[in-house]
This record gives sequence, C-alpha cells and structure tokens, in this order.
Amino acid sequence: MSTDRHYAREFVRTFFTSPTAVQGEDDSAKMLRSAAQLRGMRAPDVWVPDNEDATAPSMREEGIENIIEVVAEHGADFPGEIHPRVVWHREDPAARYQGFQQMLRVARSDTGAIEHIDGFVIPEVGDVDDWKKADEFFTIVEEECGLEAGSLSMSVIVESGEAELALGDLRAEMGKPSNNLERLFLLVDGEVDYTKDMRAMTPTGELPPWPELRHNTSRGASAAGLIAVDGPYDDIRDVAGYRERMEENRAKGMTGIWSLTPGQVVEANEAPLPPVDGRWLLEVGDEEVALEPDGEAQVYDGDEVGLDVVGDGEYALRVGGDERVLDDEELEAELLDMTAYVPSLDDIVDSMEEFEAAKEAGRGAIAMTQSTTVVIDGVSVEISRDRMWDEATYQAAQTPITLFQDVHEHRPDQHEDLEEMYGADVVERATAVGN
Amino acid sequence: MSTDRHYAREFVRTFFTSPTAVQGEDDSAKMLRSAAQLRGMRAPDVWVPDNEDATAPSMREEGIENIIEVVAEHGADFPGEIHPRVVWHREDPAARYQGFQQMLRVARSDTGAIEHIDGFVIPEVGDVDDWKKADEFFTIVEEECGLEAGSLSMSVIVESGEAELALGDLRAEMGKPSNNLERLFLLVDGEVDYTKDMRAMTPTGELPPWPELRHNTSRGASAAGLIAVDGPYDDIRDVAGYRERMEENRAKGMTGIWSLTPGQVVEANEAPLPPVDGRWLLEVGDEEVALEPDGEAQVYDGDEVGLDVVGDGEYALRVGGDERVLDDEELEAELLDMTAYVPSLDDIVDSMEEFEAAKEAGRGAIAMTQSTTVVIDGVSVEISRDRMWDEATYQAAQTPITLFQDVHEHRPDQHEDLEEMYGADVVERATAVGN
Amino acid sequence: MSTDRHYAREFVRTFFTSPTAVQGEDDSAKMLRSAAQLRGMRAPDVWVPDNEDATAPSMREEGIENIIEVVAEHGADFPGEIHPRVVWHREDPAARYQGFQQMLRVARSDTGAIEHIDGFVIPEVGDVDDWKKADEFFTIVEEECGLEAGSLSMSVIVESGEAELALGDLRAEMGKPSNNLERLFLLVDGEVDYTKDMRAMTPTGELPPWPELRHNTSRGASAAGLIAVDGPYDDIRDVAGYRERMEENRAKGMTGIWSLTPGQVVEANEAPLPPVDGRWLLEVGDEEVALEPDGEAQVYDGDEVGLDVVGDGEYALRVGGDERVLDDEELEAELLDMTAYVPSLDDIVDSMEEFEAAKEAGRGAIAMTQSTTVVIDGVSVEISRDRMWDEATYQAAQTPITLFQDVHEHRPDQHEDLEEMYGADVVERATAVGN
Repeated sequence: MSTDRHYAREFVRTFFTSPTAVQGEDDSAKMLRSAAQLRGMRAPDVWVPDNEDATAPSMREEGIENIIEVVAEHGADFPGEIHPRVVWHREDPAARYQGFQQMLRVARSDTGAIEHIDGFVIPEVGDVDDWKKADEFFTIVEEECGLEAGSLSMSVIVESGEAELALGDLRAEMGKPSNNLERLFLLVDGEVDYTKDMRAMTPTGELPPWPELRHNTSRGASAAGLIAVDGPYDDIRDVAGYRERMEENRAKGMTGIWSLTPGQVVEANEAPLPPVDGRWLLEVGDEEVALEPDGEAQVYDGDEVGLDVVGDGEYALRVGGDERVLDDEELEAELLDMTAYVPSLDDIVDSMEEFEAAKEAGRGAIAMTQSTTVVIDGVSVEISRDRMWDEATYQAAQTPITLFQDVHEHRPDQHEDLEEMYGADVVERATAVGN
Repeated sequence: MSTDRHYAREFVRTFFTSPTAVQGEDDSAKMLRSAAQLRGMRAPDVWVPDNEDATAPSMREEGIENIIEVVAEHGADFPGEIHPRVVWHREDPAARYQGFQQMLRVARSDTGAIEHIDGFVIPEVGDVDDWKKADEFFTIVEEECGLEAGSLSMSVIVESGEAELALGDLRAEMGKPSNNLERLFLLVDGEVDYTKDMRAMTPTGELPPWPELRHNTSRGASAAGLIAVDGPYDDIRDVAGYRERMEENRAKGMTGIWSLTPGQVVEANEAPLPPVDGRWLLEVGDEEVALEPDGEAQVYDGDEVGLDVVGDGEYALRVGGDERVLDDEELEAELLDMTAYVPSLDDIVDSMEEFEAAKEAGRGAIAMTQSTTVVIDGVSVEISRDRMWDEATYQAAQTPITLFQDVHEHRPDQHEDLEEMYGADVVERATAVGN
Repeated sequence: MSTDRHYAREFVRTFFTSPTAVQGEDDSAKMLRSAAQLRGMRAPDVWVPDNEDATAPSMREEGIENIIEVVAEHGADFPGEIHPRVVWHREDPAARYQGFQQMLRVARSDTGAIEHIDGFVIPEVGDVDDWKKADEFFTIVEEECGLEAGSLSMSVIVESGEAELALGDLRAEMGKPSNNLERLFLLVDGEVDYTKDMRAMTPTGELPPWPELRHNTSRGASAAGLIAVDGPYDDIRDVAGYRERMEENRAKGMTGIWSLTPGQVVEANEAPLPPVDGRWLLEVGDEEVALEPDGEAQVYDGDEVGLDVVGDGEYALRVGGDERVLDDEELEAELLDMTAYVPSLDDIVDSMEEFEAAKEAGRGAIAMTQSTTVVIDGVSVEISRDRMWDEATYQAAQTPITLFQDVHEHRPDQHEDLEEMYGADVVERATAVGN
C-alpha cells in the first residue's frame, strides 16, 4: 500500500461538530440548519452533525431524523464534506448496534440525504478489531443501500489507550482483503474522554496536553495515508490559546483541529495558511518577539535586548542581564543567530519559482538570500543570510503550498476570501507553482 | 477483554520497597519488621519486601526467610497489599530460576505466610515472552501449593526498551488461553536501570525525565486494565520535587509512585487526594501563583502583575513589562483568562451532587458558576465564570472521587486520617456521591 | 536474542556524510578525498560517502566510481568505519534497484574497495518489509562477491512514519531465519524528510524537535542491540545549539549524531566524553549556572541569587524576588538542593575504583562524599552531600566509562588527543577501571 491518499482532500483543517437535536427548542434542528448554511471561512472542511455527545440520549431518535431532513435540504449546497457522528462504544454492544441502525436509517431514507453524505464518524473506538466491527457495518449499509463498497468514509475518535495503540496497526490492517478499512479518513483525538479513560487528573480539571497521543495520531495518519485532527479546545473564548495549540499541532504534522463554534472554524481555517506578510522575529531567551517593520528596517521595541555603540566599530549588545562587546562582524553573526524570518505566501512562491528556474537551468542547489536592517535602541545593523536550497528544502517548503492548493481546489466558496486576503495575483501564482 | 480491573484495587498510590536483609545488623529482618507495622498514612497501598536490589546478593537466602517470618507474623494485620520482589533478569536464566525458587519457598512455607501475600514483583523483565516465563512459574507455584490458578498477582518493573515495547502487546496477549497473564497487576517504571539499559547519560548523573516511557506505561495500563506506577525518586529530602513529579504523573494517568521511605509514603498517599480547601491561581507567564484568600476575596501579592485605576471605569493592567488600558468588561475577561480554580473535595462533591439532581430532573447539561473577588494592588475586581457540565464533564470530574472512594473502601486504617483532614461530613458525602 | 551488540563498536558518536560527486569541479572526488584523509578528533567514527542527497541525481554514476576509487586508495588507512550511502525509496522500485546496483558495483570492483567497506546506509526506508528488501540485496551482493553472509552492515535512515513504527518490530524480526537483519547497525533519524513525510510545518521553516521520534529510535536501538544516531543539525555555525541538542540526545540514550562538516565532527566526537574538570552548578529557576572555581571555593557571580548575614547564624537567602531567613542548617540544606556537581572523567574513575575496592572488601554499598564551599555575595557556606553507591549506581556511572573505553579501543588515532586532553595517567586508569 502506498501512502497516497485515496480520497479527494489531502488536508482537513476544520472538523466542526454541531448538535443535531436541542431539547426544549421549538425547532430541534435549528442549530443543524444554521450550520448547514455556513459559507466561506465560516464553513468547515468537514462538518459533523453530531448525534452523539452533543445530543441528549433521549433525543437521538429525533436527532437522526433531523440529520436526514437538514442534509437532504441543504447538503447539495454545503461547501465542505458532511460526516455525521453516530453513537458507538468499544465496551457497549447496544451502543454499537444503535450506531449501525442510525447509519442504516440515514442511508435508506427516501429523501436522498445519503447522496450528500461523505461518511460517518465513529466515536469511542477500541482496538483495531473494534474498528473492524464498525467497518463491517459500513459495508453492510453500503450493500443494503446499493452503494459501492468503500464509498462511505469512516473517521474515528481516538479516545482510549487501546485506540491509540491501534494507530500503529492500521497500515498493515488496511491491506487485508477481509475488511474495507481503506475507507478510513480522519483520525481525530478526543482528549476529554481520553483523559477519563487514562484516569488522568490535573488540579484545576483542565485537560493534560497529551503530546505523545498527538504524535502517535499524526504518525499513524502519515503511515497509513490518513489525516490527523486534534480534539476540541474547550475554552472557546481563548483565541490566542487555540492558535498556539494549532501551531504546536502543525509542528507535529497535525493540520486539522476540532471546532466547536463558527468562530473557531474561522480561526482554524485561516491558521494553517501562510501569512499575508512576512515578519522578522527576535529570539529573546525562550521567547520569540515580532520585530516592528519600519520601511525596510525591523525595529525592536522591548527592554530585554539593548545595543550601544561603544567605540569605532564596537558595540555593546545586552541580552537580559548579559552584556558583551562585539565588533561589526561578531554583531552581525550574533543578530543572525537571534533572528528568524517567517515567510509570507508570496515569499514561499518566490523561492519555489526561483528554485524551479534554477533546476530547469541544470542547477541542483542555489543560495537564497534573506536580508534586512535590524534596529535596536536606535542602532541599525544590516544582516544578511544565505540559505542553501536543494530538492529536499524545496519539497519541505512545499507543504504549506500543497495545503493552499488543496484548499483552493476544494473550497471554491473561499476563493473570494483568499483573494481578498492575499490579492488575486499571489493566489494565482500560488495555485500554479510546483505543478 | 473489557478493561475492567479484575482485582480489588482500582488505584494504587504507593509502592513501597523495604529491604529484606541488612548485612551486619543483629536482626537482619529489622527494617522489614518495622515496615510491616506501619499504619494509616504511613502505610503504603502496596508493600514490597524487596529481596532484589535492596538486599545484597549474598544475603538473599536469608532474605527470603526473613520475608516468610515477618509476613507470617505481621501479614494478617498489615493494612495494604503485600507483594514481595524476587530476583529475575531477562538475560540471566540463573536469576530467573532463583526467582522461581524464591516464590516456591514462600508459597510452600508451613508458616502460612502465603495466605497474606497478594502477589510477587518481577524486576528486569524483557519482551512479552519473558513475561510469560514468569507467569508460567507463578502457575506452577500455584499448582504445587494448592492455590487457585491466577490467585497470585504479578507486577513487573519496566526497565528495558523491550519491556517498554511489550506494554503495547499486553492487551492482546492477556486474552490468550495459553497463559495466565490476567494475573498482571502493577506496571512499575524502574528509571535507574532503564537509564542504564538505554545507555543514557546526563552531566550530573541525575535521571532523565523519560516522559515517553511514563506515557507508554500509563497507556499500556489503561489498555489492559492494569495500574501504572512511577519509579523511585532518589532525592528523598526533596519533598517539593517529589510532589511536582507526582502532579506531572497524574496528568499522565499514572497515580501511583514508588516510595523509598515512610516519609515518601505519607506524601504519596496524600498527593492524589483532592485538597481540603479550594484555591485560586493566577497565571503569570508560564508560572501559576496561588492567590492569598482574605475573606471572600483572593489577593495577589507579587510584582509581576500590577493594576491601577486610571479613569472612570478604566484600568491599567500590567503583566510583566506589558501594560494595557482596559474597561470593566475587558478587565474581567482578562482576569478570567488569567485565573484558574483548584476545587476542594467538598467542591467536587457539591458539583457532582448538583449535576446528579439536574439529571434526575431531566436536564442533561447545567451551568456551574465560579465567582470570586480578585485583589491586585488594592484594586478589587469581581469575576464570575459559568462552566457547562454535561455527562462527560461529570465523568471526568469523577476520577478523583473514584480514587477517594477506592482509598476509603480498602484502607480502613486511614479513615481517621481522612476524617481529621476533611471532616466526617465531607468524607461521608464523598463516599456516597456517584453511586 | 540477547541485546549484545554483534559488531565491534558499542557507541558511534559521529555519522559524517560527505558528497561523492560535486558538479562542475575539476576533481569531482575532491571532497571525498579530503574526508578520507581526516584523522584524530576530525575523523568520524562512521564516515558516509554520500551518493544520495549530497550528490546530484545526474552525477550518481560518476559518484559511485568516485567512492570506489577513493576508498580503494585511502580506505586502509581511514581510522573509522566506512559506510557509503546509496539511493533507496520505499515508494520507488527504480530507486531501490539503483541502490542494489550501486552496492553490487562497489562490491565487484577489482580495486578491492569492498575490503575497506563496513556496510552501506539505506535512506528512506518504509515498514519492516521494506527493510527486508534491502537486506535481501545485501545478501545477494555478499553471495555474488564471495563475502560471508551478514558481513556487510546495514544502517537505515528513519524518515517516515512507517519506518518509525518499524522500530518496534526489529527485535522480533531480526530473529527470523528468513532474513539476515542481524546485519543492522545504525538507526539514524532523518528529520528533514521525516518532517516532509509527516506534513509538519513551522512558521519559520525550522525543523520541529520531534522528541518522540528520537525516543522511539533510541528505544528501538536498545531493544534490538543497535545504535541510535540523531539527524543533521542544519545551522552549522550554531555550535552552542549543536552541543545542546547532543546533551538532550544523550539523556535519551542517543549518543551519536550526524555531522555535516569536519567542524561538527570535532564537536560531536568530544561531546559525549566526560569533562576534563568537574564543575559545580547552581540551579536558578529553570536555568543551571556554572559556579566559578576559586581555589577550593565555588563563587556565584550573578544577580538572581543573593545571600546576606542578618544575625548570629542567620542568613537571608534571596532567589529571584523571593527572600527567606534561614539558620545554618537550613541554609546548607537549601544550597544542597540548589547545587549539582558535574563529575570529571577523573572523578568518575575515582568513584568506581572506590566502589570496586569496597565490593572486594565485602561491602555492597558505600557513601561517596561531595563537598565544597559555595560563595554568594561574599558569604561562604560549606556544603557536603553523601550519596549512596550500590551496584546499580556503579553500573549507571559506567556508561560514560564504557563509551570512553570503546573510543580508546577503536580509535588509536585519537589517543594523542585524549592524552593531551586528560593526561596520560587519567587515560590509563580510565581504560583499566571496571574490567
């Protein structure tokens, strides 16, 4: 099995769950109906009408009817994929049978809802044999309803120790002729229930960070050609924290994240896109501070770093409490070490085009120059860095571009937002480069 | 196999090893005798008379006799479980045979010592086939001594790379009819020998933190229905460090820790119990500072955060070197983000009871309110936060209560300590809630 | 299978790749020739003439000829092992066949180059079945060229999720009669391509730290009796960062690191050797500051910690903004907690000899005393710490000595450097102790 993705999307940024039935509302499908009509940056890549935790147990019968009704009505126009979540539990056969019935009901409905549904999400899975039970129900549903075998995707919520262990078996298991596990799509971490299953405790009750779980999910996805998605971020008002979590996740190869609100959807849709403007960072201790652009110069405006001219071509550079006297060359070297550049989408496209041209001309490696003027305490220092680009650098730089192109291809409803953000010219070049 | 624990205890807080033979003492069983007579918070959940590392090789014959003698005499009254550690090594058949003989000798002794023994601890295990060799010796011992198959628990010390890998196989292996690995009980990390086996080095010789090992042990325990226990904390005078380690471990789902002294036993017994009094924390940078209660208010008494009234309903909030002017609403929002509350046992019971009553009344989710007055630089700010509780929140909050109830059920010798700590009323409600 | 290493080296500090063909040079083997003539601390433990990434695809034919020529000429005198890297890719059969041909060509060359070659490095491996394909080509090459089966070592670059997962299977797979995987030698992380394969992104394009990958590689090596080596450190001017990475790696049991330049080779050869002089550290917050030796005393020369005599036997100790008044005993205890000692090679040898003598005399555990005078703000405090040494402590302390002895045995070209560094006497005692 190659690790080529068998489904259309290569990246999924947003996994948005919305309740299917709200007790006591006049219209119990109200929130569902509103989610189905989201567009642009407010619409998720994957929308999950949730008939599990977001719906009270007594409302799940009504919930599944709501899914059928709303998807039949709005599904054709929804810009993302639709993957309802049904009930399931590795230790509860009744829950599993109920999940099976829910899928069957959606698939058999004469409303045609199933035509707009890309797959189902199975929560609370256990070891890989439990995943196979779900897969078998998908297969039966497909057979019963005249769908092609494997046409419905299966996504799972990893929220137990045994499911985490199963992530290491998927690659081998998916190749077996006795199952249709090639239907697997998203591996989603569910940290709330995982924490409960692991019996973990924190003083304030906030969730542990679980870095190993996220690594293992991302690695499992990479090895089996799937897509890894992080779990919900409960504190929905904490936008900075949500962004930080997503940046951490991207460094782990996990590009997608669960969104609980349309506001989180916007954040999560935009977060993995390269920035509109490049920016310079100065590392101070363990922190990275953004420098303030002033024309071509980059100004540091803090107290932690200080710079003085103390003689002819002699400078006193202070970092925290530590001061050193340096000559021009040493100063530039030091500042080069302390600075880093975050490239914009435009910058990445430029570099890739430049490398492609060089490759065309028969050169395998070229030096890319980054230079600027850093201003600290009114003292200006020119810095310039050559970075060698070879095929490997080129390919690594390509990940954000591949993501951008994937978004552009599959989300026409976001074209306007992208053009407004980056300008039509950059968008056009970014969709063309590397192909 | 369900992940339900097959043994009585669901949690083990303390794994206390004590030497079985001290060379050159008049009474070589002195330390053993003294450990056997610990009670209350000074007595561990699991006591491990140690005939391996804590006993010189030449004294192990005498050591096993000491175990038999002391357990026969004091075992009936010991309030925790008793699991002697015998010798074993994945690469030394002689050590394995010796371990077998030691178990056999304990089981065959006409003193009746075996009646008070719950299992044995096997150190230095290798891959899962090595665990099976030990399991087979347990089975033979049981057969030879007329004990029911599987009646002796087996705990292992994970102190090699291959044993760490075996943690991923336990769930599948324990189901096989050809072994009795269902007898597995504790998975204990042994970081000293693990460090040696991994050939790891630190400049000062202190142990590496091994976060991945601890995660894998905890996950293995969760997947196979076992209990994970962290290794020894060598610096026995460093109580703050021991507590910090335990807090880290609990966030990984590892509630138990090795104790080397009765002093560490007290710390480790108390650490996972919810606090007697709730407290507010203020996040300052990466640190969390406890606020000082003053009546209903919570006072911050540090230099890192400052607050001034700068106009009518306008405040200057300084965090580190960063100052912002905020209105009432923004200030409350900011302080809400910066504060966190550590609930007491009483608080947790309250919340659970409130949610249970709501559920009884047919509501699936309710808002719990936390509010207080935060005082910074003499300026008082009321803050109030609603947190939604649903079934998942309820179940996650239950872990510390389940632990408390487990302790209360299995350690009557600690009832007096618990009542003195929390008050009889809170203890009674905490044992009743959630059942 | 025991975890005893089957090959000569137990440790590999440096994995040095050098280009085999440089496009546009008069002498395309120039860099190869220069690498072959490195000696002493500038010569790596393992030299990897690189016919993969460091050589342009169009030059690989010429590259393999260059390897043959240079190794035939200089191989006999090269002080380290020689393991050329050929091309390979888990998803590209043409690349795999090309790698096979390259090995065959080296082995068949009538120059006798193969006599100086210890093995080959296979990049971009996939799951363990992919490793077996490479192993089979090694076996065929050996058979075709009259070499003993298994005589060529195989090292791999782990740079995909599936290869990381394979690390857990090696121990079991290497025992199977259907392969010759016992030839495995180095497990090398390749973070650039791994990052690409995991689709990970960071804002500045710098590599994520991948702590779990490094742990898993080190654990896989430990479980299967192999040697773990970390990947390239791109910023070749950042010596401090390279050293920090190596210190982190050693705490994970990964002693070796990739070197891209002879300068990095020197750093990586010296880094794991114990220091020439011991030194005291003072922990201040999360940082460790080296104290300045002044005769027998150790002077702290910073602002973060302050000490004053405030009365008869009363001291005010300030750490950061936090001041406490302590008596003599409390002050010593506090400073003991805050200090740590980094032992020199000489110190380690002393302690081991002392313990060996005690063991000879029938004692299983002895107390080792470390004492010094710490001077803060002119106030001198005597501190003294006893550490118990038993067999386990002794064996853990042995890792750096085993490493030293391994280096001394296999790298006679570094004897002069070692003696210059440590003095002939210390070198002699260090090679004798523990045997």
